[in-house]
Amino acid sequence: MMEFPSRVEVVEVGPRDGFQNIKTFIPTAVKLQIIAQLIAAGVRKMEVTSFVHPKAIPQMADAAEIASTVCAKYQEADFVPLALVPNLVGAKNAYRCGIREVAYVISASEKHNLANINRTRDQSLVELASITSELPDLKVRLDVATAFGCPFLGRVDDGLVLSLIEAGLQRGISTVVLCDTIGVANPKQVYNLVRAVQNAFPNIPLGLHLHDTRGMGLANTLAGLAAGVTSFETSVGGLGGCPFAPGAAGNTATEDMVNMLQAMGVATGIDLDKCLAVVQTVRDHIQAELTGHMGKACRYDNL
Amino acid sequence: MMEFPSRVEVVEVGPRDGFQNIKTFIPTAVKLQIIAQLIAAGVRKMEVTSFVHPKAIPQMADAAEIASTVCAKYQEADFVPLALVPNLVGAKNAYRCGIREVAYVISASEKHNLANINRTRDQSLVELASITSELPDLKVRLDVATAFGCPFLGRVDDGLVLSLIEAGLQRGISTVVLCDTIGVANPKQVYNLVRAVQNAFPNIPLGLHLHDTRGMGLANTLAGLAAGVTSFETSVGGLGGCPFAPGAAGNTATEDMVNMLQAMGVATGIDLDKCLAVVQTVRDHIQAELTGHMGKACRYDNL
Repeated sequence: MMEFPSRVEVVEVGPRDGFQNIKTFIPTAVKLQIIAQLIAAGVRKMEVTSFVHPKAIPQMADAAEIASTVCAKYQEADFVPLALVPNLVGAKNAYRCGIREVAYVISASEKHNLANINRTRDQSLVELASITSELPDLKVRLDVATAFGCPFLGRVDDGLVLSLIEAGLQRGISTVVLCDTIGVANPKQVYNLVRAVQNAFPNIPLGLHLHDTRGMGLANTLAGLAAGVTSFETSVGGLGGCPFAPGAAGNTATEDMVNMLQAMGVATGIDLDKCLAVVQTVRDHIQAELTGHMGKACRYDNL
Repeated sequence: MMEFPSRVEVVEVGPRDGFQNIKTFIPTAVKLQIIAQLIAAGVRKMEVTSFVHPKAIPQMADAAEIASTVCAKYQEADFVPLALVPNLVGAKNAYRCGIREVAYVISASEKHNLANINRTRDQSLVELASITSELPDLKVRLDVATAFGCPFLGRVDDGLVLSLIEAGLQRGISTVVLCDTIGVANPKQVYNLVRAVQNAFPNIPLGLHLHDTRGMGLANTLAGLAAGVTSFETSVGGLGGCPFAPGAAGNTATEDMVNMLQAMGVATGIDLDKCLAVVQTVRDHIQAELTGHMGKACRYDNL
């Protein structure tokens, strides 16, 4: 404990996970401005949109335009645009726009997968196999939803997570992201599950997607760091609250993550002041309660 | 890392540190009701008031009544009422009401001590010596303010903290509490400072008073736990925000602390549901923005 890596990757998910929770359609130009500001702040990997059906999530109706614009604009840059895809159709659309790495979500909990995606885990895995076989150039990140807890199952057994990852690996995923979908993970659990995954699958890149719903976003991050994780997904401003609990925090805020890591001497490549400027842009243009802390805290020049 | 104690002490400071930040006078009966509810929830050590001059903090004008009532009512119980005292006069008043353990604040940073208490560190230490010599039965907890950062100095050198503790020990303090007064500590720093204090003074009981201003309250708690600390000060609802940054969090919320520790299998003796009922009482009676997370999050019966 208290040995940390010198650098970690902070993957921004606000333009996907954050925006999709906003009811009012955000103009495409505003989305592109926020994405551009985040990249200028130093973000090097970002979920820029989601190729879901616009009837399911109207906010993401401009997915193709967002993805095409970002892929064209930053193709020379050291920047990796990600998109969430729910199925092969979405993956093909994303690929056509220039996306070469996608996030694909399956819940560790069968009941949650049915409620969330209307598929069994096995059905989700069949679709995953069709994506990886039909689009061999496309990297797929497996987002393991409800990895730490499920509204239906309660505590999720590690075995459910491990079996899902194994099935994903057999179908060609390139990265695993353990997601605390409802924000109930605790640091001990994060540490232990990460260690279990690392032991079972030592070669797969592993990321964490931790929510701050119960104030443990950064504590769980610390546990993940201590276990050796070097990739964390966050959302600018903390965008992406829990839709079932107004006012409750959802995603851990990018600016809170960057501030903590910077204070600990862990580089992220993201400039905190520029990141806070993005929070202000979000405030100016989007009607949302922002739950990130750094946007409200005093700044001290000497700290 | 990730070995934790089976039990820690959560010291409630809401009725002192929280209430003193509330402008409108809280009726004494409401204060006593909240204190009673906290004790019923399982709190076993609590700062119940502050014996400051009522001109300085009118909210604490009923200190003697609060302290006397609580000391009389719970003298049989396994409960330790604490009071903050700024000087010998306050300590004598507290003692007269039945208080046998007080918190006395000195800032590690000389400039902050002058701004906060209008005394140099040396002047504060002279007053401390008069308290411990005139009231030998009174236990004194030394609250080391700005232990991790100061608005004037910036990062506070460990040496300033260590020298203050040494001076306090020479004057008979019984406990040291390292306070992150402005909420700028980070987990690495907490771990390192705790270790430094333990190494220099292995026999003094050590507590942490961590703020959640930048979202690191529980992450810093985790670092403290990892370093061996087993006493943490928190405030119900997160009462006690930063007066300079409206909306920003101040104290780490008791309910957030209890929830995390319980989830990790660390006993606190505090019942989470009863603690959340106190949060509701605070909401019902006190006009304050509560920054604790658990009061806003969904509850799951099975988690």
